[in-house]
Amino acid sequence: MAKKPELDDFLVPFFDGGKKLKPFDLKSVDSSAKPLSRGSKEEDRTRLSEVGVLLDELQEKLHAQHRQRVLLVLQGMDTSGKDGTIRAVFHDVDPLGLRIVPFRAPSEREAAHDFLWRVHAQAPMAGELCVFNRSHYEDVLVPRVLKLIDDEECERRYRHIREFEALLADSGTAIVKCFLHISKDEQRQRLQARIDDPTKHWKFDVSDLEARKQWDDYQSAYSVALGATSTEYAPWYMIPGDSKTHRNLMIAELLLRTLQGLKLEFPPAKESLKGVKVE
Amino acid sequence: MAKKPELDDFLVPFFDGGKKLKPFDLKSVDSSAKPLSRGSKEEDRTRLSEVGVLLDELQEKLHAQHRQRVLLVLQGMDTSGKDGTIRAVFHDVDPLGLRIVPFRAPSEREAAHDFLWRVHAQAPMAGELCVFNRSHYEDVLVPRVLKLIDDEECERRYRHIREFEALLADSGTAIVKCFLHISKDEQRQRLQARIDDPTKHWKFDVSDLEARKQWDDYQSAYSVALGATSTEYAPWYMIPGDSKTHRNLMIAELLLRTLQGLKLEFPPAKESLKGVKVE
Repeated sequence: MAKKPELDDFLVPFFDGGKKLKPFDLKSVDSSAKPLSRGSKEEDRTRLSEVGVLLDELQEKLHAQHRQRVLLVLQGMDTSGKDGTIRAVFHDVDPLGLRIVPFRAPSEREAAHDFLWRVHAQAPMAGELCVFNRSHYEDVLVPRVLKLIDDEECERRYRHIREFEALLADSGTAIVKCFLHISKDEQRQRLQARIDDPTKHWKFDVSDLEARKQWDDYQSAYSVALGATSTEYAPWYMIPGDSKTHRNLMIAELLLRTLQGLKLEFPPAKESLKGVKVE
Repeated sequence: MAKKPELDDFLVPFFDGGKKLKPFDLKSVDSSAKPLSRGSKEEDRTRLSEVGVLLDELQEKLHAQHRQRVLLVLQGMDTSGKDGTIRAVFHDVDPLGLRIVPFRAPSEREAAHDFLWRVHAQAPMAGELCVFNRSHYEDVLVPRVLKLIDDEECERRYRHIREFEALLADSGTAIVKCFLHISKDEQRQRLQARIDDPTKHWKFDVSDLEARKQWDDYQSAYSVALGATSTEYAPWYMIPGDSKTHRNLMIAELLLRTLQGLKLEFPPAKESLKGVKVE
């Protein structure tokens, strides 16, 4: 009997200094897979609710403990579901302990710094759960596809990213990175749905369709970038994204496992408060 | 028949340049009142859920429109329910468009600036709904009660606050300020409950009981500060807070009215997208 697929089957193999015979390729991952499905959409939604409650409990301990930090990085092509993921996965998590950081095209001031400057400024602090909605990975994708940086600069950036994430990890940050993987046809349907609904027009512009024309270039750029930056301390996971329900569930389960791995506990009771009666 | 109490009965009278014969006094407000109650806790919770969904819809339009901003300021004594309010009122609001800003004791760097510097930096941007969990009002409360600033400096700060909030309002920010009003006995019970539950000890320290000893001084300082900074463009509302359910409902209703007043609509459809077929 075949082994039931699990989270780690979707882990991008760790960077090994470029010695791999077979580089990582997104094409090897089925965007319609549902490895963690419990059977039906209904059951997957029920499980997501359960996980949401557990995430909330763990996040409260993370906040109380005020020592460790958690960073979830979301990347993916347009319409791959980054916004929807945030909404669904964190529905039951207390907004007090959550910080969502969207990264858009850099401002003039941001672009006048190195590419990690604005990202470092937003790193989670003790007790925080941060979600990067897009991230520093944009800087090894768009400029690479548009040929604004050459291969050497790209390799330098991968190295800087690995070192930067190692710094965060060494300082007590648990990092999980998710690539939301959809098929080209799934994207077509989702973009068309937005165009057909005038209340969704604010979400994009005709020029957004340009990136779609370079679909294959972006898939290649992602394949190389993910392979060069998946590490033990900041692993990349492939999240099949054609099914929204399953995508949400998979990311929630991944985050749950990460938080459970931190062995979070409420700080010990304070001796100074023992037996105190409030007047 | 007596008029049914409504939100505006809990509005702190607007500052009129100090000409009032009778200054505003917190003592005039019943912390156990439930002016918006629908009858039972159950019914109030049902209504809160309805309002939550409406808030979420309006917040999406606010975000889509990317022009106006909303700022909710929460103040109150320890245990008055600021954290609980955020959790309950925003349960159904998409975390993408929400930013919670906690203000703690100023850092050395923050204290080296004027008291509004760090606050201004966190003002909501276009399309954002920001919640200040404590705020610049701390700077006219703690130092006043501890007599670190004299009356003259306090009056100057009130004026700076009025002018600062006028700047935000003139730039398209709808401001609502809520004072979570609990009785001294209600605070006693809530503090005691925290002390009796060791998993809640991280939330405070024995020294927090000091502020309670100065309860009356804080109530007076709040009365004066609220009276001096309630304005048409940034009104203060008294939120009776002994009932958590009703407190949540009242703040949600207030925010709902504020958002409804903005006449938010999705931006118009883009001509450039009309009839476009995605390939």
